Amino acid sequence: MKTLLIIGIGAGHPEHITVQAARALGRVDVFFLLDKGEHKGKLNALRRDILERHTTPGAYRVVEVLQPERPAGSDYRASVDVLNTRKRAVFEQLLDDEVADGECAGVLVWGDPSLYDSTLRIVEAIAADGVRALDYEVFPGVTSVQALTAAHRITLNSIAGAVQITTGRRLAAGMPDGVDTVVVMLDAQDGFLALLGENLDIYWGAYVGTVDEVLLSGRLDDVAKMIVQARQEARRRHGWIMDSYLLRRRT
Amino acid sequence: MKTLLIIGIGAGHPEHITVQAARALGRVDVFFLLDKGEHKGKLNALRRDILERHTTPGAYRVVEVLQPERPAGSDYRASVDVLNTRKRAVFEQLLDDEVADGECAGVLVWGDPSLYDSTLRIVEAIAADGVRALDYEVFPGVTSVQALTAAHRITLNSIAGAVQITTGRRLAAGMPDGVDTVVVMLDAQDGFLALLGENLDIYWGAYVGTVDEVLLSGRLDDVAKMIVQARQEARRRHGWIMDSYLLRRRT
Repeated sequence: MKTLLIIGIGAGHPEHITVQAARALGRVDVFFLLDKGEHKGKLNALRRDILERHTTPGAYRVVEVLQPERPAGSDYRASVDVLNTRKRAVFEQLLDDEVADGECAGVLVWGDPSLYDSTLRIVEAIAADGVRALDYEVFPGVTSVQALTAAHRITLNSIAGAVQITTGRRLAAGMPDGVDTVVVMLDAQDGFLALLGENLDIYWGAYVGTVDEVLLSGRLDDVAKMIVQARQEARRRHGWIMDSYLLRRRT
Repeated sequence: MKTLLIIGIGAGHPEHITVQAARALGRVDVFFLLDKGEHKGKLNALRRDILERHTTPGAYRVVEVLQPERPAGSDYRASVDVLNTRKRAVFEQLLDDEVADGECAGVLVWGDPSLYDSTLRIVEAIAADGVRALDYEVFPGVTSVQALTAAHRITLNSIAGAVQITTGRRLAAGMPDGVDTVVVMLDAQDGFLALLGENLDIYWGAYVGTVDEVLLSGRLDDVAKMIVQARQEARRRHGWIMDSYLLRRRT
């Protein structure tokens, strides 16, 4: 039997990790650090900072792996399936080659393992197929949603209101019915521009909780252009961006 | 100038507090513990457990206050407004009577201060009216949503899907359009019963992360009755319930 801990580490601030998750780090014999090539350096530096703060040096091994990329193609869902098949193969190889029987492996997930992250889905599939004796545990973490609202000191919901968490891709269809608050993650395309003129406030943040944090907020029609520029500038400076935003109907 | 720290402490597990929030506890001169009469004992015992684990004994004062109740009445929103006016009066009195100039007060909020909690809204209003020189900071926490998904080891969203967070009250209108996952909080009435026959899975949890944790999941039509009974039993045994659930369309 091998054990894999899927550990939410918060959305960027090295102390947004929970006490429970920090303690779980101490159980791990080998950490898998997976990242995309484009921003591998900075994100893995943040992860190593978290490991150094909360673990005993020399008590574990670290294996860094370049994460497979999503293949180009117009069918988004199909390309995600291909990506996840490739990621699964990477995970299986890591478990087979880098973890001895009885050992405990750990994966550090930005934010929380439940939200727009494929690790849990992949590990569940590996455990379910029965080829390997694998147990796994999930440790919750502060998401970029909570990091964003805390940084702006705002509530997520309006009084008794509903909230939708969605992707930039889906926002193109407009503000969803029945909610006055929408949180948008994974928006590569400035999807908020489709909602100009809809009388919304926006609360945007990039690299929230890190030294590079940028926050902008205001009436969407007033600050949209500024946010587009801030995103371009951030991408230019850092080579990648980690941001999200909240849209709320003005009353 | 007085300072108020609004500190998310996670959804029940005493180590779901973040390292940052645990450190913030150490800055506090006086904690306000506010709770409803019905479950004051148990929740404040959990809060005191968190304080004892993460602070130095004798380094702070604790003021326990019975939280005002929402007045009875059919207009929900109006009764919430009355409740929040009463809560604001309580907070103002606490700040005036219990906190010296230059001191730091702290409020411990279950889950995260952004989600279905009125503290942040009330403090913002007190700071905005300019009567008192008040600064405030927000510390994010793991919500009961993350605690629920971690306990069930499930993702919050389906691949590239949207998620709605809503209340039992709103669920009566049916599954929202455009999402395949709904998380329901504050459901006093078994609102999921309105969705029988809609081909949904449910993942339910009560007192998640505490020693009293109960988890149930399965096809909604198969387990709804069991969850109704479990909620009744939990209310009978503990006198109150702290639960939430996730509904997902079956594919």
